[in-house]
Amino acid sequence: MADRTNTDPARMEKIVSLCKRRGFIFQSAEIYGGLNGCWDYGPMGVELKRNLKEYWWRKNVQEREDVVGMDGSILTHNSVLVASGHVGGFSDPMCDCLLTKERLRADQVPAQSGMGFFYTGAAKKDGSWNIEKKYSVLVESEKQADKARKTAAQYYAQLAGKDASYKDMELKGECMETVTDSTMYNPANGSLLTEAREFNLMFKTTIGATSDENDPNATGWLRPETAQSIFCQYKNILDSSRVKLPFGIAQIGKSFRNEINPRNFTFRSREFEQMEIEYFCRPEDGLRLVDEWLEHRLCFYDEVGVPREHIHILDVPDGERAFYSKKTYDLEYEFPFGIQELEGIAYRTDYDLSCHQKGSGRPLEYFDEETREKFIPHVVEPSAGCDRTILAIICEAYDEEELVDDKGKKDVRTVLRFVPRMAPIKAAIFPLLKKNGEQVRIAREIEKTLQPWMSVFYDETGAVGRRYRRQDEVGTPFCITVDFETLGENDASLKGTVTIRHRDSMKQERVAIEDLLHWLIARIR
Amino acid sequence: MADRTNTDPARMEKIVSLCKRRGFIFQSAEIYGGLNGCWDYGPMGVELKRNLKEYWWRKNVQEREDVVGMDGSILTHNSVLVASGHVGGFSDPMCDCLLTKERLRADQVPAQSGMGFFYTGAAKKDGSWNIEKKYSVLVESEKQADKARKTAAQYYAQLAGKDASYKDMELKGECMETVTDSTMYNPANGSLLTEAREFNLMFKTTIGATSDENDPNATGWLRPETAQSIFCQYKNILDSSRVKLPFGIAQIGKSFRNEINPRNFTFRSREFEQMEIEYFCRPEDGLRLVDEWLEHRLCFYDEVGVPREHIHILDVPDGERAFYSKKTYDLEYEFPFGIQELEGIAYRTDYDLSCHQKGSGRPLEYFDEETREKFIPHVVEPSAGCDRTILAIICEAYDEEELVDDKGKKDVRTVLRFVPRMAPIKAAIFPLLKKNGEQVRIAREIEKTLQPWMSVFYDETGAVGRRYRRQDEVGTPFCITVDFETLGENDASLKGTVTIRHRDSMKQERVAIEDLLHWLIARIR
Repeated sequence: MADRTNTDPARMEKIVSLCKRRGFIFQSAEIYGGLNGCWDYGPMGVELKRNLKEYWWRKNVQEREDVVGMDGSILTHNSVLVASGHVGGFSDPMCDCLLTKERLRADQVPAQSGMGFFYTGAAKKDGSWNIEKKYSVLVESEKQADKARKTAAQYYAQLAGKDASYKDMELKGECMETVTDSTMYNPANGSLLTEAREFNLMFKTTIGATSDENDPNATGWLRPETAQSIFCQYKNILDSSRVKLPFGIAQIGKSFRNEINPRNFTFRSREFEQMEIEYFCRPEDGLRLVDEWLEHRLCFYDEVGVPREHIHILDVPDGERAFYSKKTYDLEYEFPFGIQELEGIAYRTDYDLSCHQKGSGRPLEYFDEETREKFIPHVVEPSAGCDRTILAIICEAYDEEELVDDKGKKDVRTVLRFVPRMAPIKAAIFPLLKKNGEQVRIAREIEKTLQPWMSVFYDETGAVGRRYRRQDEVGTPFCITVDFETLGENDASLKGTVTIRHRDSMKQERVAIEDLLHWLIARIR
Repeated sequence: MADRTNTDPARMEKIVSLCKRRGFIFQSAEIYGGLNGCWDYGPMGVELKRNLKEYWWRKNVQEREDVVGMDGSILTHNSVLVASGHVGGFSDPMCDCLLTKERLRADQVPAQSGMGFFYTGAAKKDGSWNIEKKYSVLVESEKQADKARKTAAQYYAQLAGKDASYKDMELKGECMETVTDSTMYNPANGSLLTEAREFNLMFKTTIGATSDENDPNATGWLRPETAQSIFCQYKNILDSSRVKLPFGIAQIGKSFRNEINPRNFTFRSREFEQMEIEYFCRPEDGLRLVDEWLEHRLCFYDEVGVPREHIHILDVPDGERAFYSKKTYDLEYEFPFGIQELEGIAYRTDYDLSCHQKGSGRPLEYFDEETREKFIPHVVEPSAGCDRTILAIICEAYDEEELVDDKGKKDVRTVLRFVPRMAPIKAAIFPLLKKNGEQVRIAREIEKTLQPWMSVFYDETGAVGRRYRRQDEVGTPFCITVDFETLGENDASLKGTVTIRHRDSMKQERVAIEDLLHWLIARIR
């Protein structure tokens, strides 16, 4: 789907910068120039992601009697993805630039017009013409012919590096033509493109000890979605778990797609994490259940900090859904780079299990003990992108608040307004003065008490106002300060209480140390 | 390392069988014949694994001020693994069978002696000899020459399938020799093996839109360990997290090694999960810290159900450690298939960061603000196998207990004696009679109360004794039964209490419903 409005690249840049500066997200292998389309989560990012995955599991598996979990391997048997249709059909039409070897989406190459062609060919040492390697460059005028000659020379120099017979070749044979609206040329350099071929988007590897890399038995794939391992283990789970229809199997895990053009930070990446449920049901219940799941999932996003009123529900119309799907909802979010999909909820009928029954030759029917019927269950699939949801949560939480201090001085604070259950750090604990031994001792004691129950952070460096700001930037909802009141120095009635400063309102209140754990747990679960 | 004693294959078989039957572990793509070396965790297995990972994270990240987490990509930049030495050196010497293309560990091919050789070659259609493709088979006597001729014919038939010039070839040229103690022949079929070459154990793939699969810029690897992404992000984490030496970076995630011979259930698999910490320190602290970590890690295993007295500590002697390591402990466990490594704790000096500083050209030094010194930190690495620990926990927990009932009848119950914090299900909840509406209502209420806090299981089917046994097999520590006493029918003082049956002792006690949540939380954390 094309990116829609309302884009705000400046806001996105600030978010990407904050993510790096505060340890949420780094580019993979950044010190080596980066691995395009791959990202690493830093200390803050990993906690945020853990919170999201944990809450998804709690709501969708732990708190539901009708859903069980699984965790399948990433390496996937060739036959699984042949049966599912991914080996044959999970592809884009691609063409290659003869010069750079760059691969381009054939349907995204813009049409080019030029004043003419510049043809050339190379004469090999032995005098024969290399007619197969004929090279064409689109030029805008005859004046550019020289540039085209150089580009062609560059191309043949490349060939010469690989094939000695091209060494000391001579460029020969030029002619000019006129062309309009052609998509056969690379807009970046004018080079001829190969004819479009289907390019599979899955990552392929060779498994086991074979010397034959084209042996189909040795071909393995990195899964392009977690769903297929659920379908493959459906029967084992049915047999081992005594589940009855309707029931779901849930999985969280990494998937991989060799995106031609990874972009928009972590949104379109080559390695990503999914949170998928395959919810098996009777055929007559599918349409009702897809609506039920839509409602569950909207509640979920609301609870993790993406309000339902910020989610666009796209009821995918006939003709745009996969041919086997009777109903599909796309849940979309308005990122600073456009409106993009967070989750798809698809009623996939019995398509997947039927494919695997056919592919494996194993019966995958469900036997209904009450009606004595045998049938292949239908399935409703809520499939969420974990990294996309993390990005939506961050974009939603990011705020710059203008402040005016007592003296009328203006200032801006950057704050991530995470819902408390998602915040990487739940509470920061400060002694007001790091030189006050008693404040430090009490703060450390509070840290020890809270640590087994939540992620906390102890900080004694700098003015307390600056410590608040540092916590605002990583979205810590509560800052706990042990101060002179805690020691009972100014007002005996406040002895044993601490200051709690709220991130969003910046308001402060006093809470007794002995109530702290429960006070916090009530607010972060 | 070679497998040591005391093996018990029968016990291992029972464990593998239980793991499948009760939904702990299935073979990946089982319905397609299975993907060798890859495993899927079922509903019980995924909960067990989640508990282990969660507890590791809590103890090593959440409860430690000096350790932060990260989560790096699995796809790895070629340069990272060139610098770390994996591309050049992470390999085994392998040779290929000319007939089957099977690849064998050269150092594991047993020496063969035979009565002679049988040589043959194929004459191509054009009359020329194919001397390059000369094929040899080891035979035990001249009588076997016919069999050898057939094997050779099979080999050339294979070639003919790929190269038309071998069609209708004629086998020619035989001679016999005597050979003793040769490792050049495949013991399985007598076929000649190729000379040994180094075979990299990493899975390779092609990343991005290139048409040139041998382009080194397009080569990506599945990481063979999580450690390298920690080293690569060390500087970003240092800059974004304000950590000071000594500090650790922890990571849990999948790694991949193309094991030639995956074996021992999930122990030696091609896809596996690691729990690694790189603990950075001053050079002078390395030797002390490796001992400190040994103690931490032994405590950890104890707390998850692998008692420290069942762990063998191997202080790897000089000459057997990696050349850069000044001290390495291997923690080993006695599996039913032999004593094998669970975790390595290695003091790796500054080897890794130095490699990446050199490889990337980026300074990876630490600047000590107190001493104004700049240096590359040393590192202590506790590296645990998650799947191996899961397997050790299961093996340790597995028990068959002989019981004698009131009538003297003998019986055996299978029970997984997990420590409660590791159990996939913390509590099962039963109404004594499923026809008693009040019992069912109360049991359902208890389920709803406990669900947000722990994994519970509601069961109303069959006699309560059988329900206990089913829970014993998945290691549920507590079964809660709502019975007639709960309703106050026999003894008013017991109203509002339930029966709790303990898995290990099978003893029962009564607990008030209102105390249940805290009673359980105290026992499962």
